[in-house]
Amino acid sequence: MSTPLRLGIAGLGTVGAGVVKIVQRHAALLEARSGRPVTISAVSARDRTKERGLRLKDYAWEDDPVALARRDDVDVFVELVGGDSGPARNAVEAAIAAGKDVVTANKALLAHHGQALAEAAEAADAVIRFEAAVAGGIPVVKALTEGLAGNDVTRVMGVMNGTCNYILTRMESAGLPYADVFQEAADLGYLEADPNLDVGGIDAGHKLALLAAIAFGTQVDFDSVQLEGIGRITIDDIRQAADMGFRVKLLGVAQMSGRGLEQRMTPCLVPAASPLGQLEGGTNMVVLEGDSVGQIVLRGAGAGMGPTASAVMADVIDIARGTRLSTFGQPAAALKPAPAASTGTPASFYIRMTLQDKPGALAKIATVLGENGISIDRMRQYDHADTTAPVLIVTHRTARAALDTAIAAMAGTGVLVGEPVAIRIEDV
Amino acid sequence: MSTPLRLGIAGLGTVGAGVVKIVQRHAALLEARSGRPVTISAVSARDRTKERGLRLKDYAWEDDPVALARRDDVDVFVELVGGDSGPARNAVEAAIAAGKDVVTANKALLAHHGQALAEAAEAADAVIRFEAAVAGGIPVVKALTEGLAGNDVTRVMGVMNGTCNYILTRMESAGLPYADVFQEAADLGYLEADPNLDVGGIDAGHKLALLAAIAFGTQVDFDSVQLEGIGRITIDDIRQAADMGFRVKLLGVAQMSGRGLEQRMTPCLVPAASPLGQLEGGTNMVVLEGDSVGQIVLRGAGAGMGPTASAVMADVIDIARGTRLSTFGQPAAALKPAPAASTGTPASFYIRMTLQDKPGALAKIATVLGENGISIDRMRQYDHADTTAPVLIVTHRTARAALDTAIAAMAGTGVLVGEPVAIRIEDV
Repeated sequence: MSTPLRLGIAGLGTVGAGVVKIVQRHAALLEARSGRPVTISAVSARDRTKERGLRLKDYAWEDDPVALARRDDVDVFVELVGGDSGPARNAVEAAIAAGKDVVTANKALLAHHGQALAEAAEAADAVIRFEAAVAGGIPVVKALTEGLAGNDVTRVMGVMNGTCNYILTRMESAGLPYADVFQEAADLGYLEADPNLDVGGIDAGHKLALLAAIAFGTQVDFDSVQLEGIGRITIDDIRQAADMGFRVKLLGVAQMSGRGLEQRMTPCLVPAASPLGQLEGGTNMVVLEGDSVGQIVLRGAGAGMGPTASAVMADVIDIARGTRLSTFGQPAAALKPAPAASTGTPASFYIRMTLQDKPGALAKIATVLGENGISIDRMRQYDHADTTAPVLIVTHRTARAALDTAIAAMAGTGVLVGEPVAIRIEDV
Repeated sequence: MSTPLRLGIAGLGTVGAGVVKIVQRHAALLEARSGRPVTISAVSARDRTKERGLRLKDYAWEDDPVALARRDDVDVFVELVGGDSGPARNAVEAAIAAGKDVVTANKALLAHHGQALAEAAEAADAVIRFEAAVAGGIPVVKALTEGLAGNDVTRVMGVMNGTCNYILTRMESAGLPYADVFQEAADLGYLEADPNLDVGGIDAGHKLALLAAIAFGTQVDFDSVQLEGIGRITIDDIRQAADMGFRVKLLGVAQMSGRGLEQRMTPCLVPAASPLGQLEGGTNMVVLEGDSVGQIVLRGAGAGMGPTASAVMADVIDIARGTRLSTFGQPAAALKPAPAASTGTPASFYIRMTLQDKPGALAKIATVLGENGISIDRMRQYDHADTTAPVLIVTHRTARAALDTAIAAMAGTGVLVGEPVAIRIEDV
């Protein structure tokens, strides 16, 4: 095959610029590996006049990404606009309707409309690939869809928002409170325009929902992802968790069991010595578990021009090589509605609380836990200067519901100061 | 497509049995993901009467793997016999000649005959896939061939022999000498029949040569891999390296530069805090570096029934899905002869030596290093009870040739007791 594969690239921000640069710099390499030239026919962005440091004059320009998606000289529509509606969605739908393949980095679009888009693509005999939507340059969509295709996948976990991991590890290393490090991250340009996409876990939740669909053969179900951001994590939690051998991560977990499909994107404690526990800064890590393969860990840059463009190009080259995969690894019609789990898999929990420093206070708390069937693995009471005592408890494995009941009941003991904080300890 | 993909499996050892089990246990899952049933037509092994705990009666039996490879009811020949010649090679050649696709876990066969087999496969319009040949269940061949296809790959590194990593980490944790842990590994059945395949670095060297061919678009060139086993690593090296913040690994490094292609499978020091440094026991880790993606780390089980069978099935499902790739990611005719590097990339080195405990001894050694243009980063002299002093030196970056010249010249100082040991410190 020596027919060129012709791209139309919508969106010339960081990632789009990175893709243009790779196509220009590595033309020979791409042709050798793809078996055909990879070229750009046309591009589109909001502002034509903006100086991007790119040589674009050989490409047609379209102001409207929908028009770009429909061009006869475009084989693959590369959507790097972003957003779960508006131009990105319209253009992807237009590309599919025109029978063109789509490569996208848009996790929000697929988390919200993945099933409908997958069905449309199959009807049009087009493919949608989205390696760049999950964990940047790490080829995790490929590893899960293809590399682990012979496995009954049992669990998918990941630290998939580099900004949150930067904030949590920076709080620990610099001993700074959340608000200060949040501001630092903002000043460094690490945060999305709506920071809640990052620190609220939404962006990472989108990614988790996509991986869960592939892993378990279910329709993407972002609405069932249990989301909890990192805004309530204090420097005390981080220090005291460390003291007990743990680190705090915004950890995504998707797991299928008799209970149904659990999808959580919440702060968790993980053993400090585990690969997830050792992950510093903005790096991403995804852990895939299958019945045959055991545990596979993938680590790399989760964002940035080069890594994300690398993932886009992997999808482009797959298409150039003639690889045709269903969007989520199975025909869209075969994907079952995700059976959302009513209760979560039991786990150990870390509980931080402040007690009044009087005789019998700790015994009262321990009694409440015992009455709810929760046994204590470890307990620590810290030095204190005033009339209250900080106390940490690590429980044995228990259902979250039992824990919530126990925490509610603790209020009745009269020894509690403020609200206890409970964080799940994930077995990694 | 609902035509079944029909396998012929040659070799029913651990991996072959694992593949049969997956095909039987996950028939529905494989069909859903492949878009067609995956079935077994026939099997072959040396001893038909051996009890394997497998249900084989539905499959035809062939005593001769070559006959199996030629069967009309076999679409994919799965070669799990092993060995770089004899039945494995004959059967793979027969399968290709008959136009059948080949999935193999045989690193030795491909390391020695990969180019010829790739050419034959392309001439016959067949594909050869070998995910299981490198790092067991880790989908590293896929990550490199496809996931990083948009990158100019700059370096590939890996701990790819679990037995060696087990021995080295066990020496450290148990404080035991090499010979004792070697015997333990033998007793546990961790060693190949010819243990030099493991501890001599040959098995891991085969894997490195395969990855290098994909990474750099060169013909597989196992003969140019610089091989050095772990047999000369002492518990002192491990302890003293640890003392300076390093761990000893049998590390494969393939790197293309102006010097040519370097391929090394040798003991190296890596920072103890790096992912490679933290790798314990029999686990494998591969590090891929590309100009866009930066550094990707993959970690998982490097051997065993489940992980290796998982990798075999990934290749089978790729074929079932219609994915057709060149063996090494580019047409065989496009692969260039590997330009073996005459000198290696400069690095820091760890040097352990014993000096006579007399005034000026250390100065003489430092002078020799300086005369050869080697500057010292750190130096330690250890407590000692007799008339000799153990000394460790960590150099700044230097060419290996300069170091070898310096070490040879040290003999002339008259202060050296025995031979210095030098171990490369790889920048990871």
